[in-house]
Amino acid sequence: MGRTYDTVSFLSDYGTVDEFVGVVKSVVRSIAPAAVMIDITHEVPPHDLRAGGLALVRSAQYLAPGVILAVVDPGVGTERRAVAIEVAGGAGVFVGPDNGLLAAAVAMTGGAERAVQLTNAEYHLPAPGPTFAGRDVFAPAAAHLCNGVDLAHLGPEIDPITLRPGILPLSQVEDDGVKAEVLWVDRFGNVQLNVDPNDIEFLGDRMRVRFGESGVRTAGRVTTYGDLKAGQLGALVDSYGLIALAFDRGSVAAELHLTAGDPVTLEPLT
Amino acid sequence: MGRTYDTVSFLSDYGTVDEFVGVVKSVVRSIAPAAVMIDITHEVPPHDLRAGGLALVRSAQYLAPGVILAVVDPGVGTERRAVAIEVAGGAGVFVGPDNGLLAAAVAMTGGAERAVQLTNAEYHLPAPGPTFAGRDVFAPAAAHLCNGVDLAHLGPEIDPITLRPGILPLSQVEDDGVKAEVLWVDRFGNVQLNVDPNDIEFLGDRMRVRFGESGVRTAGRVTTYGDLKAGQLGALVDSYGLIALAFDRGSVAAELHLTAGDPVTLEPLT
Amino acid sequence: MGRTYDTVSFLSDYGTVDEFVGVVKSVVRSIAPAAVMIDITHEVPPHDLRAGGLALVRSAQYLAPGVILAVVDPGVGTERRAVAIEVAGGAGVFVGPDNGLLAAAVAMTGGAERAVQLTNAEYHLPAPGPTFAGRDVFAPAAAHLCNGVDLAHLGPEIDPITLRPGILPLSQVEDDGVKAEVLWVDRFGNVQLNVDPNDIEFLGDRMRVRFGESGVRTAGRVTTYGDLKAGQLGALVDSYGLIALAFDRGSVAAELHLTAGDPVTLEPLT
Repeated sequence: MGRTYDTVSFLSDYGTVDEFVGVVKSVVRSIAPAAVMIDITHEVPPHDLRAGGLALVRSAQYLAPGVILAVVDPGVGTERRAVAIEVAGGAGVFVGPDNGLLAAAVAMTGGAERAVQLTNAEYHLPAPGPTFAGRDVFAPAAAHLCNGVDLAHLGPEIDPITLRPGILPLSQVEDDGVKAEVLWVDRFGNVQLNVDPNDIEFLGDRMRVRFGESGVRTAGRVTTYGDLKAGQLGALVDSYGLIALAFDRGSVAAELHLTAGDPVTLEPLT
Repeated sequence: MGRTYDTVSFLSDYGTVDEFVGVVKSVVRSIAPAAVMIDITHEVPPHDLRAGGLALVRSAQYLAPGVILAVVDPGVGTERRAVAIEVAGGAGVFVGPDNGLLAAAVAMTGGAERAVQLTNAEYHLPAPGPTFAGRDVFAPAAAHLCNGVDLAHLGPEIDPITLRPGILPLSQVEDDGVKAEVLWVDRFGNVQLNVDPNDIEFLGDRMRVRFGESGVRTAGRVTTYGDLKAGQLGALVDSYGLIALAFDRGSVAAELHLTAGDPVTLEPLT
Repeated sequence: MGRTYDTVSFLSDYGTVDEFVGVVKSVVRSIAPAAVMIDITHEVPPHDLRAGGLALVRSAQYLAPGVILAVVDPGVGTERRAVAIEVAGGAGVFVGPDNGLLAAAVAMTGGAERAVQLTNAEYHLPAPGPTFAGRDVFAPAAAHLCNGVDLAHLGPEIDPITLRPGILPLSQVEDDGVKAEVLWVDRFGNVQLNVDPNDIEFLGDRMRVRFGESGVRTAGRVTTYGDLKAGQLGALVDSYGLIALAFDRGSVAAELHLTAGDPVTLEPLT
């Protein structure tokens, strides 16, 4: 037997209205009673690999050592591979579909060191139908890993180089401004951009923000929400180290009609 | 003392906006600190015994051994009985209202072997009002069962034959087609019917689907979502072994305006 | 080392769509693996201190002994203090912002006996930005308290008298009626008022309810939902010991257009 794990961090697009999440947890509990499960989120929009991948990468550095079970799986039942990926000298194992969902978080935690395809049916549940791999394939794999079953027993090893890459949009830094994209709108309406703080230092304390068809606003570079006057738009380093557009106690996303994936440009004011 | 349990699987219509679920868990934790609680779902529509009962029966075979706490309880505070029902030689105990909610899941797990009415106030919390039985009656019962208190201490034994039956709609298989009903619409818009795959074998690879006032569509019999072309309606065996109508990455419920309880007929194409 | 704790009860306005709750739990799990976390609710409306404080006070008496982590924090990153407050001889410690959120629950559990400001950075996570105190300040504090770190290590002691009070609206009992306010609308549409049952005894079995611009209804004083005829408005002692307006299986809030904070007057019928 190999290394055991006592935490399964779990992200999906299952929602919590149906019993999917509860059933997956029940399967893990039945096989690996000592494992504790922590929900990252289950409200990834259905089939949204980009949103799921970003939530996973935002969480990755804070997760407890153990198994990370992530299921956003529009290709369930097709030839897309089900995989387990070891990172950080075995401190973590990602379990999920090989469709790009895991890629950024795997990279963030040091990169894939070993990977297998989850084809060994001895470690699956018998499935009445092929459409709930979270329950029948991924949950049992996560649980058996917790129990000390080595990756190698779950299926044939695959070359990490063959794993599907994720799509992380890069911003373009140019002399006349930074062409960015909305990565994420959080519950409070803050708008996270794919912009590193260093990349907008040349813009100084105030900058022009272009968005939508013809939207233009001025944003002040601030440290925290409380530095903003009522209605003043701010650009601050958010809790993940990226630039976010924010109001003090107001929703930027609602007022500027911004949503994930929208282009935003940050320009010098002059 | 009797058998102890270390898992409480918990389903309700409490939602997660109010603190109801958290309070029930806190009560169980205070009485039985060693018990682990697993949420099946709490988003059963308020007072919807049918939806709650179906979610419970879909989950039942996957739940970890232990106590199953299920509360959808429109008759709380009235003369409806609060009960605990032992199944599977004591591997599981259902705790909840005797209003039909538990019936299908109890049957699915082998049937009621012993049942009591939860009237012994020594195992209740003192209640400021009569309306939160989940907190004051059911949670303490679940917790004391975990601790090894025998069913018999919680109240007088009742004859399982007197437990309220559930309402599971049966499909009608006729020569000219199968008259079915929508059991469940899941988060992805897949439409589960009360149809066993064997009952539509005579329809072959393609069938006519009638629904709503005058809706008619052709569905192909497929194995998995990926077998479907864009926009093609499929009839497949879902992850619970029943026939579901599905698109590949689209919502059948939204496009065909179907919701739980709606009648659907599957007919030969000729 | 001081007293250890094994339960963290957790309330916030983070919602469960983003990964905030999962990340906070992961931080606690990483520092204090033996602690069990119980979600009270995370669906407090964003920045709504009143709703969060009321949910916390409704839950307080039912929580398991341990740490209570509560984060509704519109002033995050400003000069508002982050605090830990010991109650009940150390049976409980509240951790959260000093903005009134905790006040009523602290009072309900016996009052603040000792309090510190969470300024010792040795017990914080390094923060890329100042806006996620739940993850970087409060979660580590809760976890270290579980591990037996004494309050005194987390920062300088502060005088409990300087903690911000909460705002609990009081009803006015007058000869011609009770001027009350809606404290809470629950998932089922029941409308809890800030009215003690004793204060409306003089109104007898039936009373006039005034609400909105010119709304008037008659309510019967009943014990439970089942005592009500279809469509009949009832005033009953709810599960928290306060007067609530209720229908049997219907939403008072929807029919009378009532929401939290609305004024309601209960008057004699004559």
